[in-house]
Amino acid sequence: MAGDQVTLLDFWASPFGMRVRIALAEKGVKYEYSEQDLKNKSALLLQMNPVHKKIPVLVHNGKPVCESLIIVQYIDDVWKEKAPLLPSDPYQRAQSRFWADFVDKKLYDLGRKIWTTKGEDQEAAKKDFIDSLKLLEGELGDKPYFGGETLGYVDVTLVPFYCWFYAYETVGNFNLEADCPKLIAYWSSVKVLGRFLPVLRGSRDDLRN
Amino acid sequence: MAGDQVTLLDFWASPFGMRVRIALAEKGVKYEYSEQDLKNKSALLLQMNPVHKKIPVLVHNGKPVCESLIIVQYIDDVWKEKAPLLPSDPYQRAQSRFWADFVDKKLYDLGRKIWTTKGEDQEAAKKDFIDSLKLLEGELGDKPYFGGETLGYVDVTLVPFYCWFYAYETVGNFNLEADCPKLIAYWSSVKVLGRFLPVLRGSRDDLRN
Repeated sequence: MAGDQVTLLDFWASPFGMRVRIALAEKGVKYEYSEQDLKNKSALLLQMNPVHKKIPVLVHNGKPVCESLIIVQYIDDVWKEKAPLLPSDPYQRAQSRFWADFVDKKLYDLGRKIWTTKGEDQEAAKKDFIDSLKLLEGELGDKPYFGGETLGYVDVTLVPFYCWFYAYETVGNFNLEADCPKLIAYWSSVKVLGRFLPVLRGSRDDLRN
Repeated sequence: MAGDQVTLLDFWASPFGMRVRIALAEKGVKYEYSEQDLKNKSALLLQMNPVHKKIPVLVHNGKPVCESLIIVQYIDDVWKEKAPLLPSDPYQRAQSRFWADFVDKKLYDLGRKIWTTKGEDQEAAKKDFIDSLKLLEGELGDKPYFGGETLGYVDVTLVPFYCWFYAYETVGNFNLEADCPKLIAYWSSVKVLGRFLPVLRGSRDDLRN
């Protein structure tokens, strides 16, 4: 909306921050990007997110919104005319929230476990991680995006995690292209959109090359 | 809505299930309650929640919705005419989601830590738990409910946790009435409403007496 002041407190490599950047890009919202030093937190960050003291924080006309999925829903609520992220049907909305919550509860923790454990614990985490991705593949089905014909809430939630997958594959010695070919093809098709590359620095291919 | 078939797969002592029961009570939705044996999960539960295999699950006209906060938002979306739980203003909605998420991320884990640890770890968990409740007291302020003049999304999320507080106080040897008098007064005022007592079996006072 004309006259809106939007600032994003963020850290370039954060997949949670990337979600917000993708949502803002989809909506065509202009904003000021404020890179934060997470080792020496700014007075602004502590003031805007006194409870969690974490990025990302979206500051909209002086008022802060925290926690990435809550910010994405806020963006979808405020700038609702363009590129709706959540479906309008209540059941489809609930399903989108379910799979976004699944990404948050499963992929993040399992990825960390692959990274921080060895031996049997790492093998168990790898198996759970791949099983979780297969469930997501099942939900994607033959649609181009989780949101159907266009990017939606689950896509915005999931896509940034790809940035870490190559690291997990390397540390855990496995190959997602063999286990989850549809998800890898999906990622390629999202990448082809091109418009997210500026917000996905540190992506899978950046790490490969 | 006339002709709706609503079934709740639940377990009586679950604070997550209680959230759904409170939301359905607020909306005046008639439903079939299906008590689940969590040690011997039914074919219906496994069919309706194949991903997490957990209660609560709301089955609405044959379609399952899982995860308590997602179910409460679904109920608010579908039966929107009566007793709105989330505010209509996008910023207030985001704030409600923030505090409900805070309850989920903080109180549940910290309560478990008080229960399962001893010594310094338990003292640290107690301090974090009380600090978290004080943050919630600050958000409640002088309003009768988190939702303002009527019960809202944060109230529905928080109220069932009181059922466990007396157990935490006993195990952790502390007294919430001294530390968080406003929250205890709030709980009493919610209880006065009376209409939730049938869905809050195993509540603080049941445990006291």
